[in-house]
Amino acid sequence: MKEHVRPLPSYLVSRYHGWKATTYTENRAWYRRLADEGQRPRAMIIACCDSRVHVTSIFGADSGEFFSHRNIANLVPPYNPDGDHHGTSAAVEYAVTSLKVAHMIVLGHSQCGGVHGCHAMCTGHAPELEEKTSFVGAWLNLLRPAYEEVKELPEETQIEALEKQGVITSLENLMTFPFVKAAIESGNMTLHGLWHEIGSGGLEQYNPETGAFEQI
Amino acid sequence: MKEHVRPLPSYLVSRYHGWKATTYTENRAWYRRLADEGQRPRAMIIACCDSRVHVTSIFGADSGEFFSHRNIANLVPPYNPDGDHHGTSAAVEYAVTSLKVAHMIVLGHSQCGGVHGCHAMCTGHAPELEEKTSFVGAWLNLLRPAYEEVKELPEETQIEALEKQGVITSLENLMTFPFVKAAIESGNMTLHGLWHEIGSGGLEQYNPETGAFEQI
Amino acid sequence: MKEHVRPLPSYLVSRYHGWKATTYTENRAWYRRLADEGQRPRAMIIACCDSRVHVTSIFGADSGEFFSHRNIANLVPPYNPDGDHHGTSAAVEYAVTSLKVAHMIVLGHSQCGGVHGCHAMCTGHAPELEEKTSFVGAWLNLLRPAYEEVKELPEETQIEALEKQGVITSLENLMTFPFVKAAIESGNMTLHGLWHEIGSGGLEQYNPETGAFEQI
Amino acid sequence: MKEHVRPLPSYLVSRYHGWKATTYTENRAWYRRLADEGQRPRAMIIACCDSRVHVTSIFGADSGEFFSHRNIANLVPPYNPDGDHHGTSAAVEYAVTSLKVAHMIVLGHSQCGGVHGCHAMCTGHAPELEEKTSFVGAWLNLLRPAYEEVKELPEETQIEALEKQGVITSLENLMTFPFVKAAIESGNMTLHGLWHEIGSGGLEQYNPETGAFEQI
Repeated sequence: MKEHVRPLPSYLVSRYHGWKATTYTENRAWYRRLADEGQRPRAMIIACCDSRVHVTSIFGADSGEFFSHRNIANLVPPYNPDGDHHGTSAAVEYAVTSLKVAHMIVLGHSQCGGVHGCHAMCTGHAPELEEKTSFVGAWLNLLRPAYEEVKELPEETQIEALEKQGVITSLENLMTFPFVKAAIESGNMTLHGLWHEIGSGGLEQYNPETGAFEQI
Repeated sequence: MKEHVRPLPSYLVSRYHGWKATTYTENRAWYRRLADEGQRPRAMIIACCDSRVHVTSIFGADSGEFFSHRNIANLVPPYNPDGDHHGTSAAVEYAVTSLKVAHMIVLGHSQCGGVHGCHAMCTGHAPELEEKTSFVGAWLNLLRPAYEEVKELPEETQIEALEKQGVITSLENLMTFPFVKAAIESGNMTLHGLWHEIGSGGLEQYNPETGAFEQI
Repeated sequence: MKEHVRPLPSYLVSRYHGWKATTYTENRAWYRRLADEGQRPRAMIIACCDSRVHVTSIFGADSGEFFSHRNIANLVPPYNPDGDHHGTSAAVEYAVTSLKVAHMIVLGHSQCGGVHGCHAMCTGHAPELEEKTSFVGAWLNLLRPAYEEVKELPEETQIEALEKQGVITSLENLMTFPFVKAAIESGNMTLHGLWHEIGSGGLEQYNPETGAFEQI
Repeated sequence: MKEHVRPLPSYLVSRYHGWKATTYTENRAWYRRLADEGQRPRAMIIACCDSRVHVTSIFGADSGEFFSHRNIANLVPPYNPDGDHHGTSAAVEYAVTSLKVAHMIVLGHSQCGGVHGCHAMCTGHAPELEEKTSFVGAWLNLLRPAYEEVKELPEETQIEALEKQGVITSLENLMTFPFVKAAIESGNMTLHGLWHEIGSGGLEQYNPETGAFEQI
């Protein structure tokens, strides 16, 4: 491996030095306290890896505010304590039981490549994702139950519907974790489902009473 | 589940509207292109969920630049295509084979709760993490091989050494993925290992020639 | 001093720009009138500096509604026109004689660090607050008469009782100001005593007939 | 006193119930934690009592973010540990030594009645403020040194100049407190001077290098 590790590209080095001389310097006192006393984030946010989803910017959040897990298509698997390593479940467990976050937010988004891939796979257009060796395909299997909910819709609306249904499915899966359920039922945490439209900058939230996502 | 989903707290709603009216509006043309033409991130970054690791800020990165996967302790498991869902492996596969990122960056950090938990577990001080039902414990098992590398060091230096060794282990594990190896050997991608010190704002990178992390 | 003044942290700068582009823009016409014609607040509120007491939010108050004085433990000293500077007395005088507010509200709260400190001081557990150089201790001396009223209560109830008695003492002290007394007796102003419970979101008001604080 | 305390006006009662049913409910989990674990505000803000200065709104701040002291004309007196009660000095001491805030912000504003009164007093137009019994006059004496700095300016610019000079004087006075000086020199806190224009919604910050307030 060693021969393949390279110095950081200079454009990132320069930007880091710029951050250090400005933002870091302005906030040094607070960042030191965060280091010394530990984090106390108010919310956990589960978002997609997609480079266009700029979570902290959208919510004006600085260091220390959001415990952030990001995976492809912002999915949460169902509770399954089989002893294997489950990165998402571990992050949720840590946020709820150790950090005791007050809000658990699942943030979906438009033009999601993962959701698109799942839709292609479920409609038979992506056999490569159905190969056992495809990590992406195996991961997106978590979204298959959501596809079942949208497959009767008009075809041109299915992708966006699947992006939103995926958020709902993740919220449902969150409730299968005993510690999540306990935190919510005791009033120590609330659940939130969001969908962000990249191009328009829109933000919709899931309204469980209507079953729809509504513009914030 | 439905009765447990709540409206987004109003402080986030107003901050979102502020972002929409300023940052979004200033960048609308570009964000629309990102939506229409898809993302084309230059780098993938694998960082910790910790709320104090503000990846985009440190590198002055705007929407579209970083494909970001964040999990507890910024770990990458070894290649293991067993058909189960592996969020980290899926994210790496997507970044390398679909997005063809040019840089793959693993970013560790100081005061990492996950690393601290692994150290406690490996030294027998965290039996609760060794329970089969602990997702955090199962996840941190990925870091055990790194602990083996640092356990002979002076005790007071082990935690920081483990934070850094974890980055190296993740880089090594990345090389076990055939598509990562292929991308690197063909010159299409480079690997980078970083460690960020929260309190001082420092950033060190792994130098494979000396085996040490060096201030950037 | 000059070398110690720094630029505002960027997270506050971006949030300010967000406010300017949304809340300010929506309310510009009114804010301009408030600037041109002066404030005409209906009430003065005397509250604690505590960051958890979000006065405007609790009462849905917008710009121009509350003349707000905030000090440690929401205390009002007795009338003492000795020519020295007294920030609280000055604020009360200005509100009553210049602004002619219709309501004068003292708002106490639970988990008050100042009240806790006074209790510790009065029970001999905080000698550092009794040092002549402690501004906090000297300030909290204003609350000693209230301690005298609660010191015979069961120990575990004394802190909350002192938080509430402090509100009553401040109301009593307000009545020692001739201009306050005159405004009230002429029917131009009314007095109100409140206590806010941070965790439950509760709000109680002092009922002088029963001598108790009662849930609103 | 008792016969003068009245029930809270119903418009405030209704708004409180509205807040309790909405904002409180959305944020209950976090507010409970703030109650149980205590506040950890990042900044102290010293602002004017003026009802048009809506500090939390301008900065998108929710409960727990700002330790807020508000007095007439946002003044800080010089260090003077004479054993008397000094509300501002006590608030500063508590913020710096107990809460260890990272930022100390003095926020002045346009159309400040206190500054206007001081200017009138200093130019001989407000004899009533020079009476020994005037708390407002005695308080505004703290601003006299600032008047000395602006009295040679063209008359029509003196008021705004005095509003800004008052912020600088308060920053200077803050540096006379040994614990403030120590916190700043050790890098644990930074000072910030702001001036807010009510009508235009503008925000300027003091730049010690130019000596001027500059639009943010």
